[in-house]
Formats: sequence, C-alpha cells, structure tokens
Amino acid sequence: MKKIVILGSTGSIGTNTLDIVSKFPGKFQTIGLTAGTNSEKLEEQVRAFSPAVVALADEAAAARLRARCHGLRTTVLSGMEGIVKTATLTEADLVISAIVGAAGLVPTLAAIRAGKSIALANKEPMVMAGRLIRDEARKARVRIFPVDSEHSALFQSMEGHRAEDIRRLILTASGGPLWELSKERMRDVTPEQALQHPNWKMGAKITIDSATLMNKGLEVVEAHWLFDIPASQIEVVVHRESIIHSLVEYTDRSVIAQLGLPDMRTPIAYALNYPERVPLDLPSLNLAEIGTLTFFPPDHERFPCLGFGYEALRIGGTMPAALNAANEVAVQAFLDRAIGFLGIAETIRRTMQAHTPVEVATLEDALRADAWARAKAGEIVGSLAASPTVV
Amino acid sequence: MKKIVILGSTGSIGTNTLDIVSKFPGKFQTIGLTAGTNSEKLEEQVRAFSPAVVALADEAAAARLRARCHGLRTTVLSGMEGIVKTATLTEADLVISAIVGAAGLVPTLAAIRAGKSIALANKEPMVMAGRLIRDEARKARVRIFPVDSEHSALFQSMEGHRAEDIRRLILTASGGPLWELSKERMRDVTPEQALQHPNWKMGAKITIDSATLMNKGLEVVEAHWLFDIPASQIEVVVHRESIIHSLVEYTDRSVIAQLGLPDMRTPIAYALNYPERVPLDLPSLNLAEIGTLTFFPPDHERFPCLGFGYEALRIGGTMPAALNAANEVAVQAFLDRAIGFLGIAETIRRTMQAHTPVEVATLEDALRADAWARAKAGEIVGSLAASPTVV
Repeated sequence: MKKIVILGSTGSIGTNTLDIVSKFPGKFQTIGLTAGTNSEKLEEQVRAFSPAVVALADEAAAARLRARCHGLRTTVLSGMEGIVKTATLTEADLVISAIVGAAGLVPTLAAIRAGKSIALANKEPMVMAGRLIRDEARKARVRIFPVDSEHSALFQSMEGHRAEDIRRLILTASGGPLWELSKERMRDVTPEQALQHPNWKMGAKITIDSATLMNKGLEVVEAHWLFDIPASQIEVVVHRESIIHSLVEYTDRSVIAQLGLPDMRTPIAYALNYPERVPLDLPSLNLAEIGTLTFFPPDHERFPCLGFGYEALRIGGTMPAALNAANEVAVQAFLDRAIGFLGIAETIRRTMQAHTPVEVATLEDALRADAWARAKAGEIVGSLAASPTVV
Repeated sequence: MKKIVILGSTGSIGTNTLDIVSKFPGKFQTIGLTAGTNSEKLEEQVRAFSPAVVALADEAAAARLRARCHGLRTTVLSGMEGIVKTATLTEADLVISAIVGAAGLVPTLAAIRAGKSIALANKEPMVMAGRLIRDEARKARVRIFPVDSEHSALFQSMEGHRAEDIRRLILTASGGPLWELSKERMRDVTPEQALQHPNWKMGAKITIDSATLMNKGLEVVEAHWLFDIPASQIEVVVHRESIIHSLVEYTDRSVIAQLGLPDMRTPIAYALNYPERVPLDLPSLNLAEIGTLTFFPPDHERFPCLGFGYEALRIGGTMPAALNAANEVAVQAFLDRAIGFLGIAETIRRTMQAHTPVEVATLEDALRADAWARAKAGEIVGSLAASPTVV
C-alpha cells in the first residue's frame, strides 16, 4: 500500500489522480490533500478518501471546511505552513505535486527535503529553481517522476535505454487553439477563444500557456532539469493531433516515442505505479482510424514565448523564475481582460529585459526573483492596459 | 572484443553488418562468414576482414574461393556441414543469422544449441520452427536479438517495461510497392514492378514478400515466437512512410514505439551492441520535414497473404513451415515469370489446404513439412503455369 499526498487535489491533475486511486483501492492510501480555496470540492474528497490531513491555502476556506468536517477524523490545516506540513507527513511515500504555478515550489521542495518521492505535474517549480530541486533531490536520494504528458513520454522513452546514448529530446506541441491564426488576428483573441484547446482538457492557466506556446517554453526548461540534457539538444515539433507525446533520439538515430490518445490518467498512473503499469479502462490508440499525423516546425515569429524559454535557460540563474512569474501575471491579466493576447508575450519580454539575473543558490533567491518579476510584470500590465494599441 | 559470425554475409543484411563492423574495429572481430554461391563477394570480405573460417553452400563456388584464397589464413569450408561448422565456431560470441529463407534454419538452430547468442535477421526459421527455436534458446540460455526493423522496434519498445504489462503488439507495414493497385491490376504486375519498394532497399525475396504482404504475415508468426504474445494480441497497421517501425501497447493504453528513417544499420547495430548503442553517422529523423505520417487498416481482400500468416499460426504445428515453403517456391516462380503475381497467394492457399499439419517436435518435423510443401507448391506452380487464366 503506497501512502500518497496530493498537493493541488481539486485541480485537473488532482481529480484525475483521485480517479485512478479510487480504482485501485488495494494499491494506494490517500493520507493528505491540499487545495487553494475550493473548500467544497476538498470536502467531497475528504468524505470520499478520509485523508488524515488536508490543508487549504486560504484561511477563510479552511475555516469553512473545518466547520463542515467537524466530527470527521481528518485534520484541517491552513496556509502555506499547513500545506508544507501535509507535503511532509512522516508516513507519506509519494507526493503528487499538482499545484498550479509558482505556489507549488515551497511545498514541493519541502517534500523533497523530507525524502518523499515526487510525481511532478507542476512544472513551474522546475522552471523557477530547477538546479536547486535537482540537487536537493539527489541529496535526499528521491526520485522525481514526471506527470506532464510530454515529460512522461520522454521518461517512458528513456526507460531501458542508456542515458549516455541520448542524442536529442523532441518535445511535441499541439500548437494550441490559435495555431492557424495570423499575428494580426491574434491581437483580438478573447480568453474564451484561447481556452478552446483542440486536444486536451486542462486548467485555464496551462491552456492559455498552450495558446501562447509558453507551455512548451516552460517544458523545455523542465526537461533540461529533469533529464540533465542541454537546451541545444532539446527540440520542439508541432504535432497537431497530440498522439505522439514526445520522442527521444539516440546516437544510432533510433528514436523511441510514447504515444496514446490524450488522457492525463495514463501518465499519472505511470508516475503513481512506476515501474509497474496498471490496466486502465481507456480507449485504445487506433492509428488506422486516426489516419494522419501531421508535423510542423514551430513558428517563433507568431509564438515568441517558446523562444523565451530557451533564452531564459541560456541566461540561467533567476531568469527562468522571472520569466515564469511574468507569465503568470500576464496570463491572469489576459484572463481578466486587462491586456490582449499579444500582451502576454510583451509582458514577459519586457520583464526579462528588465531583470538582472543572479544565481539560484537558495530557495529565497528564486522567491525573491519571483516577487520582483511579479511586481515588474504588474507594472508592465498596467502600462499595456493604459495604452492597448501598443501590442 | 565481440567475436562474430555472419551467416549470409554477401546479402543485404550481411553487407550492412560488415559496414558497421568496419566502423567499430575495436568492438568486433569477424571470425566466420558464410554465403550461398557468391564467391566473388565473399572473397572481397575475406580480404577485408580476415575471418578464420568461411563457408559456401555451393561446392563449386567453394572450390573457386579456395583456389583464389590460397595462401591466406582463412579456411574455406563448403556445404551445409561447412556452414554449420562456421555457425558453431567455439570462439564465436554472437551469430548473425541473415541467410535468406528456410536455408537458415539448420545453421541457426545449430548455433543456438552451441550456446551462441543470435542476431536474427532471417525470419523464416522462426516461421518454420518457432516453438523449437524458442525452447532450444531457453534451454541453452541464449538470447535472440531481432534484426528485422519491425521486431527490433518491438524489442526496443519493450526494453525497460514489464512483459506482463503488454496488451498489444502493433506491426507497421509499408503496404509495399503495390498498395495502390486494384486486384484487377495486380494480375499483370511484373517482377520489375513488384521489386520497386517505396522505402526499403532489400533483397528480391523480401521485397516480393512486401508486395504481397506475406512479409507481414511471416512477421506476425515471428513476433509470436520471439515475444511469446498470442496472435490475437498482434495487429498490423499499414503505415506508408515506414517511419514508425512498430509499436507496443501496454495495459494503461500507453504506446511505446520506435521510429527512424528506414535504414537497416540502426537495428543491426542495436542487435550487435545490445544493450549499448553506437553512434551511427546516419541522417536524423526530422518529423517537421516529413510533415505527414499516414495509416490505413490492412486490406485482406487484395492482400490475402497477411491472413495466411495468422491462419497458419492459429492452426499451428507444421502449417507455418508449409506456408513458408510454399511462399518461397511461389516467389521464385513469380520472379522466374512462371506464374503471375496473384499466383503467389494462390499457390500458398492451395498448399496450406492440402497440408495435414503435425507437431514440430524436432528439426526433422519442420524439414519434412518444408520438403513436402516445396514439392506440393511446385506442382501447383506447374498447374498455374499451364493454365494462366485461373488467377
């Protein structure tokens, strides 16, 4: 029986994880759950899975849940302190890191330092503090299992093959909902349009990141730190159908890839059960039915955010953290209709230009850069909102 | 230094193997080579690689080579006895089985019984006596590394994953040179047309097998015995571009595949160096440049030979050996212009109908069925040649 904690249990990855856990009751025990503010959904999960501890980031939400769960055996904690306590529960074997955005960094790092294996769905911590996380995981001798479909594909395509024989990682990108649009037409894209992902049903933040291709830029950084492969050996190919989830080329030019119909339960289950697989009652891949798989080179002119990922990785230090923070602020501003779609890339670009990177030697270095970049991006968003014709 | 023997060194796989061997002089020593009749090419190989022993199936060709190689340190043997001696050289670590057709069975089985690891490019022995070869390999504790691009792809897609988690093997088929043709137009296909493979440059026998899809039928049987997977879990999908070389689906619906530009040197090198890979200076796969991969269900009406493979496996015993022998006779008759293209499938069909299968308990059982089916197929070819309007 594997004892698991889910950070971000009410989100898309969190609920899919609990869906798998509920199907294999003999394999997993859910001992801890955390969420941001969604006390209603967390209450349902408490009643269904009876975890020993749950935590809500929001104090008021935690108070509501405490009142509703009075008499149950679940302890309700709150704030970052409560989330870290849940992430480091003594009995936990595996922590599923599925908080959206930078907020996942502190509890994920705490779980690693407490010696917990990590199923990592939350890419932003790796972007903000990749070297630190990698080094701490090595020190604590914990393994990080990627949950992101692309990184799970790379991971599955490396199993059984020698790391020293790897020549290239090839991340596939769906191109997102706006792949067909001209730059001119992108100017007027609404949040509703940008949220229409062609293949994947995901949360709002990552869906907008798919529309800008920032998601792929973040994934390049994540892949670099997860697999210790230089950026020059990480490529991106646009693959509209999201059937090939990513590929690894070896020195003999053999390429191993992982494929499947887009469903996050497959990579989640692999991370939960590694090295075993569990039978999932999902539709099978039928290539003859799909008929055609198409591939395109990425378009850096219309989608500059992908290049920002490579650029931040090349510059190093706190630059990826600044990139990530600026992106989070810009995406929220776009969803709030404060800036237009092209304003997202512009906000990131200007924040990166203004940032003076330093080394990420400690967690605080990453958090300081994150805070600085959020403030800076906020300013930029304000000025873009004031003069919407600029971009 | 791995000491290798190549059975069938003057064929397509043999010369590609020596090409790789010549590029890694520190890794391999070629101690034995065998060929059928091509003494000229074997002489070149003797001069280039100085093997201790070579053998030619043809006595006259062996005599010619002996005369030409007088004074060299290479011993020239002849006949099946000479080939078996070469296949079982005491010093040999790995035997590359690359003889075309049924002729490979006896020396391959001898090598297995002598405890040699096998790099298997010659699928016919597995079709003729799959159970026997599998059982003997287990008994002798030798590994069989597939060289066929599809089986190498399956093998590479299984490395690092648990055999008990496999749900399906999916063999890809290019569809061969005649995929677009109606059955009516197939009637008049010439050997020249059928030899125009769209993706792979191979020997005549296997290229005709690709045109009839018999090659894929044989591969289904081979995959069954190599990987111990029932026929009901082995599927075929037509994939015109031959980029995805085959796929393995697991119980969680995750699919692992091996891809690459079509070049036999990649699977050969993998079988030679397993589990290590060597850097091969071949062009890299560029999916964006290729643009589109297409997939179709196999067409059993126009290509009945694929179904014959499944049928023979279902019936079992000596039926696959009979199928294989009938195919070899029919392909040769087609190349000799004795029968038309549709006559190949018809010869196999009638031979299988006439065959009463028995268990393959010994090598002799397989050889007896092979001889019987050759005679039977010869008769059928004769009657088809006499009344060419039948098919």
